[in-house]
Amino acid sequence: MIKAGIIGGTGYTGVELLRLLHNHESVEVIAISSRSEAGQLVSKFFPSLAGRTELAFTAPDDAILDECDVVFFATPHGVAMKTAGKFIEKGIKVIDLGPDFRLRDKDEYAQWYGLENFQEELLESSVYGLSEINREQIKKAQLIGNPGCFPTTVLLALKPLIENDLIDLSNIIVDSKTGVSGAGRGANQAMLLCETSESVKAYGVSGHRHYPEIKQELSLLANGKSIGLTFVPHLVPMIRGMESTIYVDLLNADVDVQSILEDAYKDENFVTVLDAGIVPATRNVKSSNFCQIAAQKAFGGKLVITSVIDNLVKGASGQAIQNMNIMFGLDEKSGLTSIGLLP
Amino acid sequence: MIKAGIIGGTGYTGVELLRLLHNHESVEVIAISSRSEAGQLVSKFFPSLAGRTELAFTAPDDAILDECDVVFFATPHGVAMKTAGKFIEKGIKVIDLGPDFRLRDKDEYAQWYGLENFQEELLESSVYGLSEINREQIKKAQLIGNPGCFPTTVLLALKPLIENDLIDLSNIIVDSKTGVSGAGRGANQAMLLCETSESVKAYGVSGHRHYPEIKQELSLLANGKSIGLTFVPHLVPMIRGMESTIYVDLLNADVDVQSILEDAYKDENFVTVLDAGIVPATRNVKSSNFCQIAAQKAFGGKLVITSVIDNLVKGASGQAIQNMNIMFGLDEKSGLTSIGLLP
Amino acid sequence: MIKAGIIGGTGYTGVELLRLLHNHESVEVIAISSRSEAGQLVSKFFPSLAGRTELAFTAPDDAILDECDVVFFATPHGVAMKTAGKFIEKGIKVIDLGPDFRLRDKDEYAQWYGLENFQEELLESSVYGLSEINREQIKKAQLIGNPGCFPTTVLLALKPLIENDLIDLSNIIVDSKTGVSGAGRGANQAMLLCETSESVKAYGVSGHRHYPEIKQELSLLANGKSIGLTFVPHLVPMIRGMESTIYVDLLNADVDVQSILEDAYKDENFVTVLDAGIVPATRNVKSSNFCQIAAQKAFGGKLVITSVIDNLVKGASGQAIQNMNIMFGLDEKSGLTSIGLLP
Amino acid sequence: MIKAGIIGGTGYTGVELLRLLHNHESVEVIAISSRSEAGQLVSKFFPSLAGRTELAFTAPDDAILDECDVVFFATPHGVAMKTAGKFIEKGIKVIDLGPDFRLRDKDEYAQWYGLENFQEELLESSVYGLSEINREQIKKAQLIGNPGCFPTTVLLALKPLIENDLIDLSNIIVDSKTGVSGAGRGANQAMLLCETSESVKAYGVSGHRHYPEIKQELSLLANGKSIGLTFVPHLVPMIRGMESTIYVDLLNADVDVQSILEDAYKDENFVTVLDAGIVPATRNVKSSNFCQIAAQKAFGGKLVITSVIDNLVKGASGQAIQNMNIMFGLDEKSGLTSIGLLP
Repeated sequence: MIKAGIIGGTGYTGVELLRLLHNHESVEVIAISSRSEAGQLVSKFFPSLAGRTELAFTAPDDAILDECDVVFFATPHGVAMKTAGKFIEKGIKVIDLGPDFRLRDKDEYAQWYGLENFQEELLESSVYGLSEINREQIKKAQLIGNPGCFPTTVLLALKPLIENDLIDLSNIIVDSKTGVSGAGRGANQAMLLCETSESVKAYGVSGHRHYPEIKQELSLLANGKSIGLTFVPHLVPMIRGMESTIYVDLLNADVDVQSILEDAYKDENFVTVLDAGIVPATRNVKSSNFCQIAAQKAFGGKLVITSVIDNLVKGASGQAIQNMNIMFGLDEKSGLTSIGLLP
Repeated sequence: MIKAGIIGGTGYTGVELLRLLHNHESVEVIAISSRSEAGQLVSKFFPSLAGRTELAFTAPDDAILDECDVVFFATPHGVAMKTAGKFIEKGIKVIDLGPDFRLRDKDEYAQWYGLENFQEELLESSVYGLSEINREQIKKAQLIGNPGCFPTTVLLALKPLIENDLIDLSNIIVDSKTGVSGAGRGANQAMLLCETSESVKAYGVSGHRHYPEIKQELSLLANGKSIGLTFVPHLVPMIRGMESTIYVDLLNADVDVQSILEDAYKDENFVTVLDAGIVPATRNVKSSNFCQIAAQKAFGGKLVITSVIDNLVKGASGQAIQNMNIMFGLDEKSGLTSIGLLP
Repeated sequence: MIKAGIIGGTGYTGVELLRLLHNHESVEVIAISSRSEAGQLVSKFFPSLAGRTELAFTAPDDAILDECDVVFFATPHGVAMKTAGKFIEKGIKVIDLGPDFRLRDKDEYAQWYGLENFQEELLESSVYGLSEINREQIKKAQLIGNPGCFPTTVLLALKPLIENDLIDLSNIIVDSKTGVSGAGRGANQAMLLCETSESVKAYGVSGHRHYPEIKQELSLLANGKSIGLTFVPHLVPMIRGMESTIYVDLLNADVDVQSILEDAYKDENFVTVLDAGIVPATRNVKSSNFCQIAAQKAFGGKLVITSVIDNLVKGASGQAIQNMNIMFGLDEKSGLTSIGLLP
Repeated sequence: MIKAGIIGGTGYTGVELLRLLHNHESVEVIAISSRSEAGQLVSKFFPSLAGRTELAFTAPDDAILDECDVVFFATPHGVAMKTAGKFIEKGIKVIDLGPDFRLRDKDEYAQWYGLENFQEELLESSVYGLSEINREQIKKAQLIGNPGCFPTTVLLALKPLIENDLIDLSNIIVDSKTGVSGAGRGANQAMLLCETSESVKAYGVSGHRHYPEIKQELSLLANGKSIGLTFVPHLVPMIRGMESTIYVDLLNADVDVQSILEDAYKDENFVTVLDAGIVPATRNVKSSNFCQIAAQKAFGGKLVITSVIDNLVKGASGQAIQNMNIMFGLDEKSGLTSIGLLP
């Protein structure tokens, strides 16, 4: 049994790790930490776990964490940067669900997160954990920067098109929609049911932290070419789910995009290219680790790719477990085979 | 008192006309028709009206309709085309909430609606009822083609930018989100709560009936210049509300878009330009006839305009009443002064 | 014009007062106070008001409030008790939407609110503002304790049955369901969309503050007889709306409850008794001041009365305005004629 | 591998069986039938299954069904009654998720379902499949009448209290709340998002088909004593989830209900008695087979028991699989260990 620990387990990605790992036959969660809730039973905090676990929250510096084979950081930015190193030194694998090991450029990190990333060596040793892009490096990695949710939808949608040189890189528009759970579990007035239900709005128009991450990875897919990107996320009244509608110009209008997408993902475990003409809804993948993708020509000539995930699974905790499976040489699908909850 | 009739009043735009006209001091609804429900009390059909009205549905050919000063068609496409004429002949004003008098090009109508528009004269005499664009013609019109909901959000957002020659007309991208009420009240499996709640999806990617309407009106605003338009609507899990996020390239990056929008709408009754940096949510205008608009520069250089309405009010029944007010020389705001229901 | 002020206007009942009074032709809101937001434009705080009002929040002790003819307290318990007196002394009418002037028994107030009610004289001079029960006293009152939302549903449902001695008073069970807006606008983790959506739960089983209020008023309706009451509220995933399902035993099984209810409310402006066999949904009265009531015999013999309101309108701000209309000798319906928003 | 078939698989209980059995290591679904969709790929019909299954719907009389070890009927009433026999004759086990084998009294079935139950022998051989009550009989059964969702919440809540003779059987009141999925997947206007969202209402006040089922089973728990039952279900705006709030009178006020509940369920796999003072929300058990129960004394003296399940899992498909596990001598928890999806 692989022993897993979770740092900062009181949020939605924390409890989602617990839910998914509960279904994983090769992993046991031996510790979950919370500075504020140390000592409290996890089952008191998350009533879905009532009667299902004896775990209590530990302090983040509890020695039990050193007994882990892998530690997940489900923490805000800045935390993993400070404390991942001590686990790495002990040979413990680390998967950071936060952003500290995603951006390769320290200046960009500083600009977007208002914080210096002083862990240059750790950063260099880390791998960006989008399994479908970096599977080989992940196998050998000890430290993973788990991708953001929005970038996951965009990168999976565009990877085959960019790698096959099919689109104009200078004019990529991403209009994304997300459920409210991405905003976390903090007592935030703006995320009250009465403030978010029965409403849609754009946010982060003038700049969102996932912007540089999407751009960096698109550019890497394009062998370093420059990317012209516009990205606007929207908040929609649902708990889970994320959709990105991506507008691009094909360099050659005659290319068979459907076949290219199907070929690209035919051996992937968690990416489903829908049949031509079918558009994915986020409900198709609710609670599952799948990403569904479709491409269509829109009136006016643009190619429109739509891509859906569950932001808490493939967009966070599920992808982290997928990475863990790869790192430990397990079947990549272990603990992640559940299909979406419908309805 | 102006005597109003509603043809096809069993849908959501029908009951919304009843709700709004109930607040209108100069109008009395004397007839509401329904082929299927003729004879039934309206208050049995719409429980919000229990105890509030004695009206019963009449047949669509009931003589009472001839006593009206104005008739609203809240019917599917094809109905107003067939029967509006007989009201026009009798000097009764007609406002069609359906699409029969929106598209100027008969071929386009045939292409998108699968139906010939044989009412050439009526069509020519009709006015596209976006009050903020065609107020002067509406004053003199006897027949109004009331705009579609999506076009309303887009046209109000782009009118000042196009009229001031500020944007590249060849690359306009509109990503819209709508609540479910736009799909109507029919017993449609796809619109069950269990099919639409907790989900987002694009639809009509390869072509939506509002596409030619948006394009026609944008082109008219641009003095007939050609428009490069991409339009993708999305269904989001809420009853009312519509948001469009519009991506355009400014011809001159230095122009003060905020001032231009504020100037353009400073005397309008129902268009609110939000302060710089504030993005509208659909909840701001729920149940009201207002449109809220904001413009921001996005990372990457695009100008992003967001625009929200209540699809059943400014996107349908409220706009119809606004047109009626203009046609009858009433205060344009009569019956429409209510502010949004928040929360 | 009646000059109105609102104390503590940053919550949902505050903005609802603004919305409803905006439609009231005889009232002008000249001041709205907030300790924390003093100086801020109200339209910045409530985006539904953008462009619709120039009002800014004042401090709660601003002199402008002394110019009011009526002051509404939209504050937590304890506030009106402390400061209503100074308005009363100046001849200003006061309507407290909080609970300080609802419970006649000071000990009960202390027990349930954890606070002494030291304003004995004010309390004695105040009237419990359920218009349908105390209309005559309200006409002469200077100080109103506006009823709680749950009590409103229960009292309107049971008043005719108790006044006609039809039910066993010793075994009344009230199972109520409320939308989330009743919990207010504070940054409360438990009221996040992600915590309340897609879920139902009971709360306050072992005691809810509306319990003594319901019991007090039922007992008054029963000429002081003792009441055996069980009351359990439930939180349901919607913004507005409140339903109570009330289980009672008829003393005489043959009585025609439908007729008795219809007779009791035939002249009331805001209470609608539905036709036999029709059960009210909260959506019927969304955004309106109406209460809809139905009674049915259930299998097993109990009489089941169901009663719905919009908790923010008839359950709070609408009822307050109804009381104001009565106090000032206006038409009781002024500003409150709107029918429910459906869908 | 156990070979399973599903009759009538196009509804929500059908796709839920597919989802849950997908996680079951000892079962393979070899056939799923639908009269209307025969020939169509299941993955086209349920987009959550895209890429996950090659199954196509068969006709209900396809020979493949005879190869099954167990057949689930996910059909309306009347269907299993007609066709279960031919599977039974072939030695195939049958679990009917519909009501045909729930009511022991043929007259009651006829009265509530408007249909004669002519399968007297089958009915007598069948077992009411509430595992926690009839586990021993289920082990030996070939035909199971899977319980209704409402009865499941009530029976699990009251079983320990009735078996220990703790409550007055003459005055049991059950106020239940259910998500919309219980109404099925048919194109039903009343279940549109626009008709059900943002609303609560009672239904079936004058009689619901689960009434006689609850009463029958409560009476059996009480050794045939007569039961005075009132039952009112309510529709709440969510997809999944069911809560019952049950009001009873304790015969002896001093009894320690908490301990009795905990003792009763300490060895059960799927029933969780919450700690004293904690009330269950339906979200705690979303997507899982668990039932959570709590008991509290309410003001006024009644004992209030609240009980929550996911109506599609423990209330339907999960319970059916639990029964299957018992019938086949498998671990009762197989395929059902997942904890609730939170948030």
